[in-house]
Amino acid sequence: MLKSCFATAHRIFPVMMQEQLLSLIRQQGDLVRKLKLEKKDSSIIDIEVSKLLDLKAKLEDGNQKKFVLKAPKGTRDYGPTQMAIREEVIQKVVQCFKRHGAQTIDTPVFELKETLTGKYGEEGNKLIYDLQDQGGELLALRYDLTVPFARYLAMNKITNIKRYHIAKVYRRDNPAMTRGRYREFMQCDFDIAGSYDPMIPEAECLKIVAEIMNAVDLNAFELKINHRKLLDGILTVCGVPEDQFSTICSSIDKLDKQPWEEIRLEMINEKGLSPDVSDKLEKLICLRQNTCSAASGKDLNATLLEELSSHSMLKSSDVAQAALNEIKLLLSYCEAFEIEDKVVLDPSLARGLDYYTGCIYEAVLLGEDESSVGSVAGGGRYDKLVNMFMTKGKDVPCVGVSIGIERIFAIMEHKQKLSGEKVKSIETDVFVASAQKNLIKYRMSICSELWRSSIKAEMSYKANPKLLQQLQYCEENGIPLAVIIGEREIEKNIVKIRDVASRQEEEVPKIDMVKSIQERLKNFAV
Amino acid sequence: MLKSCFATAHRIFPVMMQEQLLSLIRQQGDLVRKLKLEKKDSSIIDIEVSKLLDLKAKLEDGNQKKFVLKAPKGTRDYGPTQMAIREEVIQKVVQCFKRHGAQTIDTPVFELKETLTGKYGEEGNKLIYDLQDQGGELLALRYDLTVPFARYLAMNKITNIKRYHIAKVYRRDNPAMTRGRYREFMQCDFDIAGSYDPMIPEAECLKIVAEIMNAVDLNAFELKINHRKLLDGILTVCGVPEDQFSTICSSIDKLDKQPWEEIRLEMINEKGLSPDVSDKLEKLICLRQNTCSAASGKDLNATLLEELSSHSMLKSSDVAQAALNEIKLLLSYCEAFEIEDKVVLDPSLARGLDYYTGCIYEAVLLGEDESSVGSVAGGGRYDKLVNMFMTKGKDVPCVGVSIGIERIFAIMEHKQKLSGEKVKSIETDVFVASAQKNLIKYRMSICSELWRSSIKAEMSYKANPKLLQQLQYCEENGIPLAVIIGEREIEKNIVKIRDVASRQEEEVPKIDMVKSIQERLKNFAV
Repeated sequence: MLKSCFATAHRIFPVMMQEQLLSLIRQQGDLVRKLKLEKKDSSIIDIEVSKLLDLKAKLEDGNQKKFVLKAPKGTRDYGPTQMAIREEVIQKVVQCFKRHGAQTIDTPVFELKETLTGKYGEEGNKLIYDLQDQGGELLALRYDLTVPFARYLAMNKITNIKRYHIAKVYRRDNPAMTRGRYREFMQCDFDIAGSYDPMIPEAECLKIVAEIMNAVDLNAFELKINHRKLLDGILTVCGVPEDQFSTICSSIDKLDKQPWEEIRLEMINEKGLSPDVSDKLEKLICLRQNTCSAASGKDLNATLLEELSSHSMLKSSDVAQAALNEIKLLLSYCEAFEIEDKVVLDPSLARGLDYYTGCIYEAVLLGEDESSVGSVAGGGRYDKLVNMFMTKGKDVPCVGVSIGIERIFAIMEHKQKLSGEKVKSIETDVFVASAQKNLIKYRMSICSELWRSSIKAEMSYKANPKLLQQLQYCEENGIPLAVIIGEREIEKNIVKIRDVASRQEEEVPKIDMVKSIQERLKNFAV
Repeated sequence: MLKSCFATAHRIFPVMMQEQLLSLIRQQGDLVRKLKLEKKDSSIIDIEVSKLLDLKAKLEDGNQKKFVLKAPKGTRDYGPTQMAIREEVIQKVVQCFKRHGAQTIDTPVFELKETLTGKYGEEGNKLIYDLQDQGGELLALRYDLTVPFARYLAMNKITNIKRYHIAKVYRRDNPAMTRGRYREFMQCDFDIAGSYDPMIPEAECLKIVAEIMNAVDLNAFELKINHRKLLDGILTVCGVPEDQFSTICSSIDKLDKQPWEEIRLEMINEKGLSPDVSDKLEKLICLRQNTCSAASGKDLNATLLEELSSHSMLKSSDVAQAALNEIKLLLSYCEAFEIEDKVVLDPSLARGLDYYTGCIYEAVLLGEDESSVGSVAGGGRYDKLVNMFMTKGKDVPCVGVSIGIERIFAIMEHKQKLSGEKVKSIETDVFVASAQKNLIKYRMSICSELWRSSIKAEMSYKANPKLLQQLQYCEENGIPLAVIIGEREIEKNIVKIRDVASRQEEEVPKIDMVKSIQERLKNFAV
């Protein structure tokens, strides 16, 4: 992979051409001026002037074809500061996944087009990035990490695994970049595949979200839960035709952003639901919003469960009652996991993707202004997806959660900017500086000694840098220590160790340099 | 990004259709058998038989459209074991980059097509993955990390940075997968941009390669170095026409895989070089190969430098002499960095990519059989690439190195397989097991307590798992400790802590559980 093919020289021609052109224009200009000075015949001058204008037009053309210097629409580069923040957050997420015994896997950035087709619904299909047909297989960039995970399980006949996957996914969405949505963005997925007893893996997924939210200091959040089969039951008893479940759920899904009245009109006018059915729906779907919340949190959940279980219409729905029992069980597990005060049952939670078959959930930040409130994690059970890749065999039940890490990054970046503190993107502990000229090789050998002892060290790439500039570099980059050498130090076989913040210096025998630095670094770390 | 669009239900129809079809075929078969038994008129039977055959043909059709369950050509998934090995290697590489004061950046997986066009030469252009034109910008997957880095520098007007970037790149190559080449593969790049004194950044790049090779225990390697301007000088004095430099270099680049005689014929027959020029070339290009290597390593370098500097033909070439002086300087810096015994001057090293303008180098593994020897790292100076993205402004001189991490992964995986040792892909320290039924919530609360103390803990997702199975899980996954609880333990407010390897158990007051486990883990770590 290191070897590559040879470039032809044409790549440097645009620059050369422009320079040649400029030189030709200069020559031609000189010629025209000379002819004019010499008062030559105007017909001769005109010919040369027109040549000059031609050359200038060519230069113009070249400039108009100027390169567009940008990252593709909806994508962005991450500089060192952003990367330092991102890596810190990702490390916390990974630590949490590993704390829960998860392994990691990786899959290619693109899949066969047919692997993705028909998994995300009509709108999703429109947002998939296709690769150009250059002969061979038809490919497309992954849209999420869940479908590739299901493909991986089916292909390797894995029926049971707890895995995390942190990678970028691609959606040709219309990016509202101010709201932190991009066409290339990272997802952190944790999933449990396998046949287990009800609600135990679900409870762990919720626990993981709570732990991650705490780890990144986003403590004001709630975990909304609902159940696809409760939704099915509600839609059935209210009289929504079965072939409209998907589209009506899609309307309900917008309830966190729009008031019921708008949703109602959409359902009636665009989707042809009768006003009567719609009003029945509201009573059950908006139960949480409309319940007097004197009771809050845990008590409100109990009240809602009680109301739904005994509701005159829902009583007759076996699926709804089974779902309510699962929710009850989940809530009791959340108590054992000490997250019950974060969990709220919300019958209006619908979740976008169609592959969910059971419990669904979303983490929502509280206390921000309405418009910017959005989910920072979401997931649920999808028991049928793996089977879509298999011609035979039993279901591989799965449940998982995706952390909306980009939104967390955005919040962290914002916090960091507000705090005014500088983010350290360089981890260097020691800068090796020289006070005199011609010591480059001595600096190199000192660095070499430090690196050998796993000490993070840098030096200037100038052969004879100024001491002041070297020390400034330390201050600007938060490097805590400097080793300073000069002819006197070399003679005496010592080094000067400088504490950059306090500017105090100490002379240390060269043989003790590493030990002394390691001790100082230990003290900084405390 | 968590919300997505709604899928229609058509995705589950293929499975349903097939089942319906099978049921229809069964019914129709029964009908035909019944008609035959009843000895009905053959014209009636024939009609029903033809219906049956139609149904069977439909089933056939459906089966032929069976889903191809695979990762795209030239790509692969990485399972947990492979990922554990990969992450260990990457961590060592990152540690080294950070030890040298590098920051990291990230760029999108695709770039504007025009950003990549004309940077990799004719053959490279052919290997670029284009995205389909779905309206908007024309995009292509990145081919390496160097061109996106140059685009990033130009766009952000950065003239000076030391950065690393670890990410996957894409080449529509014909993958020889047995040799560890893929169409999607990872690169680990370290680059220094900025105007510095000659050969100091180059020396650090070589030092970094040496450190990484040591860190991953690949000690039998050499660092081949050469200089593009020395090559230019050699080609000039031998009489290669300037417009053939690129293509002749491309031939020379194959010298590590083919003997000179083959290269010679290619240059003469395919590229029209005169036999005389070719023979002159051999004398200089193959100088290292043809020099009696009684002198080795450092001495051989000195001998070669001496021969080249005083060579009757090269004496007249200013560029070659300047390059030789730079090489001399670099070798002296390598001595200060204590890597001089690894560095070998080799005038036949050419490197593929055309953007190099100065010193070039490659790390080559020694001691393997000829056919599999390949470079595991490579790079060089490219002072003009950033400028290709700017309409004005000074050059941003750059030098860097790319670690051929996939090859290192392959070697590590191979070593691991030979060793027969199991790779730990799960980091769990404690398994919380129960000896009796109905303790799921108690196990949950114990896990919760352990997670709160940052202890990596797991439990079974079954409500009533068997103790033996729980302990087997620990043994299979190398989990060192188990906390075992039963009714007796709950009553006495204790837990049993089991050392999985020795099978010894100890009863500990529940209040001391975390402390006791932390101490045990500390001892394991020692």
